[in-house]
Amino acid sequence: MAAHLPTLAEARSAIVAVGRAFDARGWAPATSGNYSVRLDDGRIAITISGRHKGRLSEDDVMTVDAAGRALDGQRPSAETPLHAMLYAGHPTIGAVLHSHSAAAVALTRAYPTAPGWTVSGHELLKALPGITTHDTSVTIPIVDNSQDMGQIAATIRPRLLALPPPPAYLIRGHGLYGWGRDVAEAERVIEAIEWLIAAELAERGFAGRPA
Amino acid sequence: MAAHLPTLAEARSAIVAVGRAFDARGWAPATSGNYSVRLDDGRIAITISGRHKGRLSEDDVMTVDAAGRALDGQRPSAETPLHAMLYAGHPTIGAVLHSHSAAAVALTRAYPTAPGWTVSGHELLKALPGITTHDTSVTIPIVDNSQDMGQIAATIRPRLLALPPPPAYLIRGHGLYGWGRDVAEAERVIEAIEWLIAAELAERGFAGRPA
Amino acid sequence: MAAHLPTLAEARSAIVAVGRAFDARGWAPATSGNYSVRLDDGRIAITISGRHKGRLSEDDVMTVDAAGRALDGQRPSAETPLHAMLYAGHPTIGAVLHSHSAAAVALTRAYPTAPGWTVSGHELLKALPGITTHDTSVTIPIVDNSQDMGQIAATIRPRLLALPPPPAYLIRGHGLYGWGRDVAEAERVIEAIEWLIAAELAERGFAGRPA
Amino acid sequence: MAAHLPTLAEARSAIVAVGRAFDARGWAPATSGNYSVRLDDGRIAITISGRHKGRLSEDDVMTVDAAGRALDGQRPSAETPLHAMLYAGHPTIGAVLHSHSAAAVALTRAYPTAPGWTVSGHELLKALPGITTHDTSVTIPIVDNSQDMGQIAATIRPRLLALPPPPAYLIRGHGLYGWGRDVAEAERVIEAIEWLIAAELAERGFAGRPA
Repeated sequence: MAAHLPTLAEARSAIVAVGRAFDARGWAPATSGNYSVRLDDGRIAITISGRHKGRLSEDDVMTVDAAGRALDGQRPSAETPLHAMLYAGHPTIGAVLHSHSAAAVALTRAYPTAPGWTVSGHELLKALPGITTHDTSVTIPIVDNSQDMGQIAATIRPRLLALPPPPAYLIRGHGLYGWGRDVAEAERVIEAIEWLIAAELAERGFAGRPA
Repeated sequence: MAAHLPTLAEARSAIVAVGRAFDARGWAPATSGNYSVRLDDGRIAITISGRHKGRLSEDDVMTVDAAGRALDGQRPSAETPLHAMLYAGHPTIGAVLHSHSAAAVALTRAYPTAPGWTVSGHELLKALPGITTHDTSVTIPIVDNSQDMGQIAATIRPRLLALPPPPAYLIRGHGLYGWGRDVAEAERVIEAIEWLIAAELAERGFAGRPA
Repeated sequence: MAAHLPTLAEARSAIVAVGRAFDARGWAPATSGNYSVRLDDGRIAITISGRHKGRLSEDDVMTVDAAGRALDGQRPSAETPLHAMLYAGHPTIGAVLHSHSAAAVALTRAYPTAPGWTVSGHELLKALPGITTHDTSVTIPIVDNSQDMGQIAATIRPRLLALPPPPAYLIRGHGLYGWGRDVAEAERVIEAIEWLIAAELAERGFAGRPA
Repeated sequence: MAAHLPTLAEARSAIVAVGRAFDARGWAPATSGNYSVRLDDGRIAITISGRHKGRLSEDDVMTVDAAGRALDGQRPSAETPLHAMLYAGHPTIGAVLHSHSAAAVALTRAYPTAPGWTVSGHELLKALPGITTHDTSVTIPIVDNSQDMGQIAATIRPRLLALPPPPAYLIRGHGLYGWGRDVAEAERVIEAIEWLIAAELAERGFAGRPA
């Protein structure tokens, strides 16, 4: 089960705060990214298409139904089907966040055919749900980008059924999707994986150079 | 047509906010950069020369005519002719922003003879006007720097007539010029291209190193 | 002797401020890190497990006894024994801070068998207690990570008895522990060592490339 | 001549603001750095030794005489003689700022015997006093570090008499000294040179890698 589900007002307030935090870290350039929350009445609150994520107001968050259809005449993010797929397939998911950092996108492009990125041995892996030791490996699936959301969804859906399931996935040249029982957990997942990718990049900077 | 054109008061407020945002990202070091807005009465509002862009007040924004001549006894940015050229040649342009990031300038210097920088396959390309898929290429023209604004203008003017037109251009060793129907769109263009350049730099950091 | 020891209220206020500062620098991703202060009554104030360090409130700081046992029914950080070890063995220590930067973790992973990192010739070494010249070397011990806090403690404890004693230590793939007579000194130590590691990474970026 | 010289109250306010700005950019780690202003009565206002530069209050700024001797019983920065040397030798200098960035220090260490760093062709060179074109070169002297301020002063003093004089100098493994007629100009010089060094580092990241 998801955590206690919020009202629309609570979800709006949480989404506005996420936008400000992600933009400050450079994870929401040029209106990119989108954020959603499962509401206590079954609807989904999601960011309206094209708004600057660092300057969201509560009016920039709209509602869609479980199939991702607009309920209030606004145009939701074009990636709404990717959010709806996660809520439909995983009843424990209460929030979905999509970040767009330069480092995460660069990683997926630097390995243009890799089906995933495997990260091992980091204490910070314990920030991911269900992980209790650094002495493990986690593979974050990477799927190719498409303008057909159905194609991305069809590609990633079976990979989310792996055991244990991945906590997030990357779209090549596009960014990171992460989720959790609530916004706090989804934000923790995004912070953890963005940090792990930044640490990987820093590790390359130390390695292979004169010591 | 440009978007609904603002009053001087509206333009001043928008320019002050842009300065604060760009300075916070490191895109306006040492008073560099300049920002302008086309006003509802045909004048152009532009930053006064030499002010710290992170600490602008509304008095740091002056007006010039369509030819870039000062209308209120202040000294406008030395690069005012580059702004005036854009407004004169392109009636849909409502705002012009010039950022000065280390990464953008480094890119132009690392390829000292390249006439442009071509970027392909990024989802974030969709933040640029008229682009609806990641599966495309955009070339940002690069022109050599000069202290003769007429020379820079003469070099870049014909390249802006390409079809589709570029959304921005780089001056080598100097920085990035971007524009849009209004300040929000111009800022989105700058954020997108600065991010794409940062992603390119990060991609180099991942590639060619032990995996 | 430690500096004048604070009350719980003073310690809470200082810890909340440290969390905000470390999170802003990217040293506390995904609820990682933990901070403690020795109180005037012999108890230790320490962050509760799993809270976002950039958004601590005073209620996110609890108390433990000298052996690290919870005194108020909350669950302290899992790494509380590493804090307790330092207070028990070193009466002059008044505060212990644990940061979790990408650069520090990357350094420890880039040299997977190194027992320490030696840094020489930096003016900033003088920010470390007892150092009065740049013309010296400091070795920051590196110990392997473990989920058994007793094992980490047993490994690092004898190394802290070196003369002169190290001002901090690194846990491989995990992060940096630093301390001082009070929070201000512990924060100065963390700021210094994180900066020295960032400078080392930047030095690699300059060296071994075309000049 | 220096610009209109400020009162102690004005200088204190300007120095507090500089500390906050430099700390936010990472140029003042672990209490490093020091800032001074020539006052309207011939005294020099300077930061007290050992204070956190991001959290200065006006009480953290003291006064010294032209020879750098404390006038109010506080202990000034250990590097006060380097400030006093500049004021004594150059009547047009009204403010001296010392930043301590990772990139600037890394540059000086990556070239351990270089007597200076020469930077050419950057538009941002025009932010330095007296420079009106990008098509020029500026050499920032580098002197070796010492705990004997007299030795640093004796080494750098003759190099400041070059024509045109350098706008700043670097101490190897230590940081950057810049100055100007007033705090605004000194801050502009520091921002410009720190940015130029960051751009040099980014240029290395682009060059010599697969394009």
